Amino acid sequence: MAPSLREASPKLKDAMEDCREKMQKTISSLLPQTDLAEAPLFDAMRYAALNGGKRLRPFMVLEGARVFGVDQGRARRVAAAAEFVHCYSLVHDDLPAMDNSDTRRGKAALHKAFDESTAILAGDALLTLAFEVLADPETHEDPRVRVELIALLAGAIGMHGMVGGQMLDLIGEKQEFDVGTISRLQRLKTGKLIAFCCEAGAILGKANPAHRQSLRNYAHDLGLAFQVTDDLLDLEGKAEEMGKPVGQDAKKATFVSTMGVEQARARAEMLVEQSVSHLRVFDGGRVDLLKDLAYYVLERRV
Amino acid sequence: MAPSLREASPKLKDAMEDCREKMQKTISSLLPQTDLAEAPLFDAMRYAALNGGKRLRPFMVLEGARVFGVDQGRARRVAAAAEFVHCYSLVHDDLPAMDNSDTRRGKAALHKAFDESTAILAGDALLTLAFEVLADPETHEDPRVRVELIALLAGAIGMHGMVGGQMLDLIGEKQEFDVGTISRLQRLKTGKLIAFCCEAGAILGKANPAHRQSLRNYAHDLGLAFQVTDDLLDLEGKAEEMGKPVGQDAKKATFVSTMGVEQARARAEMLVEQSVSHLRVFDGGRVDLLKDLAYYVLERRV
Repeated sequence: MAPSLREASPKLKDAMEDCREKMQKTISSLLPQTDLAEAPLFDAMRYAALNGGKRLRPFMVLEGARVFGVDQGRARRVAAAAEFVHCYSLVHDDLPAMDNSDTRRGKAALHKAFDESTAILAGDALLTLAFEVLADPETHEDPRVRVELIALLAGAIGMHGMVGGQMLDLIGEKQEFDVGTISRLQRLKTGKLIAFCCEAGAILGKANPAHRQSLRNYAHDLGLAFQVTDDLLDLEGKAEEMGKPVGQDAKKATFVSTMGVEQARARAEMLVEQSVSHLRVFDGGRVDLLKDLAYYVLERRV
Repeated sequence: MAPSLREASPKLKDAMEDCREKMQKTISSLLPQTDLAEAPLFDAMRYAALNGGKRLRPFMVLEGARVFGVDQGRARRVAAAAEFVHCYSLVHDDLPAMDNSDTRRGKAALHKAFDESTAILAGDALLTLAFEVLADPETHEDPRVRVELIALLAGAIGMHGMVGGQMLDLIGEKQEFDVGTISRLQRLKTGKLIAFCCEAGAILGKANPAHRQSLRNYAHDLGLAFQVTDDLLDLEGKAEEMGKPVGQDAKKATFVSTMGVEQARARAEMLVEQSVSHLRVFDGGRVDLLKDLAYYVLERRV
């Protein structure tokens, strides 16, 4: 069942490519162009959100939704909301006062392509749009489902989630953290949004609590694995492959800087195996792509 | 019925003071202190949100809710959400890349009291918290009500609302706008959030559409009046009274710079009278404080 540990299975590759194409359309339709005087804001939001990312988070939403037989059009709206959040976080992260990164995915960072004030506002507007999309009846006819998605997302990305993790990340530049704090940092910074993405399908499909918990556990371990491999890539990667300056996280507290490359890699492998084991409760081939995705996270080169 | 045009009625003063005190408690309880490593984020959010503002927007929510007999504890949660949004917008507005304002309400702006990265993150987290509070069942037991509040707020403060208005505002520094565009700028930048605040009570109280529309109309005119008087204060005001550098909006396109002080003041008066006239559909004294508030907006000195 497990694919080659060296590359994504052809089936996963095709499915991720299909996801990328469909998400491009969904995201574009939710971010209309305009000839109003404030058009630069809309252009900047499109620049940030239609930038050729891998769409890993949307893929998790779509595959999680597939497990529970959820309409994919609806799932794509939730996936777009999650991607808007991810993109806003990158835009604000890249700002001079934050990571001060001039490039992103091989292109000029938003504040370089436009300017700083537009980047701040575009990030704010993308975050707001995520909630607007989730609150729209088109996402689900049941207001209980919509408000549950909103509550879960808000909890995952605010002071007790992503933003809290980013704050820890900045503090970690000046202060040494133990492995426990690094672990918490990464769960907050990236893990909770990933957990939202995996759980969203269960909410949309009104899954039973046990199934929902299994996806949450899968996401939890996968999210930590994702962050470890991200740190490894940052250390090992080539600037051309990543499309962003490499090694810039070195000053920050990471698993890799704390436990070394070998132990970090072993930890990522363990986490991926553990994440896949949580999917055993689902029968048939419904979760094959989620399994493949876990191995892909381990072995990805970008 | 109309109070003296020179100052707020004693009843309004007392009610606003009462609102300020109660909101301080509500906001403080929603922003707990912590001894976690990321505590500076929480401290910064408290600094931004517990800064002694006038709480005009919360007051609108509470008084709008009172018209429909809504529980004030619930209304205060919605009022806190609106205030979090207002505070986040001020924090991001003050950033060096935006208005570059070092002071706010007579104190150091957040990015001066802490630093720029903390200010960006605290703004992001306050915005997210607003949605988290609205999505919580404590705000209303009916998920339809919660999701309607969220949809209205998101629409009011994103690319088609407040953030769009801020973008227009920045563009207006380099480009001359006609009165129509200035009017739209101000409706987006401040009017839509004010409209949310006034309408929220109608949503919480499941008011009939006509009553909800009346409050929306009141808010629309009051919001425009508010912006005009804000421009006038900026031009006429004294730095000590406002607690922020005065005259800094002069370079921006405003009603005052476009139509002159006298015409702008006449317009504000007309708008306030018009806003009050929308409240006629409500009988008894239920809307007295909303009427007083409108006259206060016209005559406030800070």
